[in-house]
This record gives sequence, structure tokens and C-alpha cells, in this order.
Amino acid sequence: MGIHNRILLAVDLHPDYDEYTTQRAVAFAKEQNAQLYIIHCIEPIHAYGAAQGYQLILEVEKQVEDEANKALSELAKQYNIPEEQQIIMQGPPQRVIVEQAKTLNADLIIVGEHGRHGFSLLFGSTADGIIHHAHCDVLAIRAQEEKKAE
Amino acid sequence: MGIHNRILLAVDLHPDYDEYTTQRAVAFAKEQNAQLYIIHCIEPIHAYGAAQGYQLILEVEKQVEDEANKALSELAKQYNIPEEQQIIMQGPPQRVIVEQAKTLNADLIIVGEHGRHGFSLLFGSTADGIIHHAHCDVLAIRAQEEKKAE
Repeated sequence: MGIHNRILLAVDLHPDYDEYTTQRAVAFAKEQNAQLYIIHCIEPIHAYGAAQGYQLILEVEKQVEDEANKALSELAKQYNIPEEQQIIMQGPPQRVIVEQAKTLNADLIIVGEHGRHGFSLLFGSTADGIIHHAHCDVLAIRAQEEKKAE
Repeated sequence: MGIHNRILLAVDLHPDYDEYTTQRAVAFAKEQNAQLYIIHCIEPIHAYGAAQGYQLILEVEKQVEDEANKALSELAKQYNIPEEQQIIMQGPPQRVIVEQAKTLNADLIIVGEHGRHGFSLLFGSTADGIIHHAHCDVLAIRAQEEKKAE
């Protein structure tokens, strides 16, 4: 058993997302003999004063959620992560990830950098917020240099 | 071999520093079968306009450095980290740690939270800066809850 037994991996399902970070995170969890949970957060669409289009926004949100479910399930299948360890939640990523780690009693949160652009929704201020508010360890996985330079 | 082969562990040698983070970092490095380097940064004393007392400041800096060397060497001895893997450097911790990781071709930097106060020189904005500027992965190790609550 490693020093981490329950790991929560936060993934960014953006179509440009490089899978290198997921691969390394999964390899890392296996090394540690840890139980690996995978989470994706959907940020609510900001639409103040969109009274006329509100129904449309709800439909878009539903569509985004369906696609996220499909993408997460495909990703998880690739790495043999069972369905009960796949989590999709709506809300601000920082808060949702920190809360979920606590609920799962995770001892490590992994966030990955975005391959293509060198950052991601889960890096930058979100990673900072997670480090400051998480009750557990946090591992930030950097993208491959050559991928970033592309 | 783990996903990390060369690890740079940044330590805070403050007398209140809780060794729990060091213990976990060392256990982690052993698990990964990695080569572990240990670094301590000494921040220069800010003394603008201290023309009259400049000699005194240099003496204090020398004393701080000597004590840091002694403390790091004792800590390293406890964990069987050889002398050539012990590093003391002067300068702003964030910059020094990031540069040193690059020089050593480290693939992981570990920073630890302070046990007693729940933060340390190496947490907070320094950890943020390291995550944003490091070329490699960064693991932030949280202090024990019961220690923080003391």
C-alpha cells in the first residue's frame, strides 16, 4: 500500500484535452495500489437576464451534461475505472472537487495541466484554490513539454 | 520504477516544523524508487537603508546559514539522504526551488504544509508560484489535521 489509498482524479473533458495527464495519473494510482475515482465538473452557464432564452439554456445544459457523461464513461472504460467510481457534478470546479474529496475520504486529489494550451480549467486559480482548501494532499501533473509547444 | 524518478523535496527548517510531511515525502520517494534531493532556501534579510548596520546583517545571515546547514544535515541523516543530495540556497524560495528542479532534471517537486500553523513558507503563494512555474509535477503534502488543530 502506498501513502495514498483513495485518489480523486479531476479530469477536463475538453475535446483538446491531452490524455497524457490521465495516463500518468492512472499509472500513479496503480503504483500506489490505490482506489481511483474520476471526477468531471460542469460549470453552470452564466446567463443573467436571459429571461427569454432561459428554456434554451436549460436545454444546452442538459446536452452538455449528456455529452460529459458519455465522454467520461468512454475515458473511464479505457482505464478500467468502474461506473461507481465515475463522478459528474455541476458547480464551480474548485468547490465541487474539494467537497467530493472530503465526501469520499480521499487522501489525494490529482489535477492535470492541459496538454494543448499548457493550462486547463483545472490548473491556474482552480489548482491554487484546491491546494488551499483541500483536506488532503494534492498532486499537480504537468503536460508534456512537446505537447505544450505544439 | 515509479512515474517519478528524481524528486526534489523542499523543507522548511523552522523549529516549529512538523516532521510528518518530511516522513511522508521520504516514504513516497522510497515507494517510487526515486532519487530524493532535499532543499532548504534561506531568504535574504530585507534591510533597505541599514547602512550603519550592514556588517551586522551580514553576520546574522552567516549565522542563519550555518544553523540551516546543521539542521538540514541532521534531518537528512535521519532519513539516510547523502550529503550530495542536500542543498542549501539563498534566494526567494519559489524561484530557487523551480530553478533547482530544472538543474537537477527532477520530475517532481514536493512541498509540505506547516504542521503547527497549518501553513508554511513553502505553502500559500510559494506553492502557487511553484505550480505555475515548475517544468515538472508538484505534490503538495498536507499536515495532519490533529497537528493543525493543536
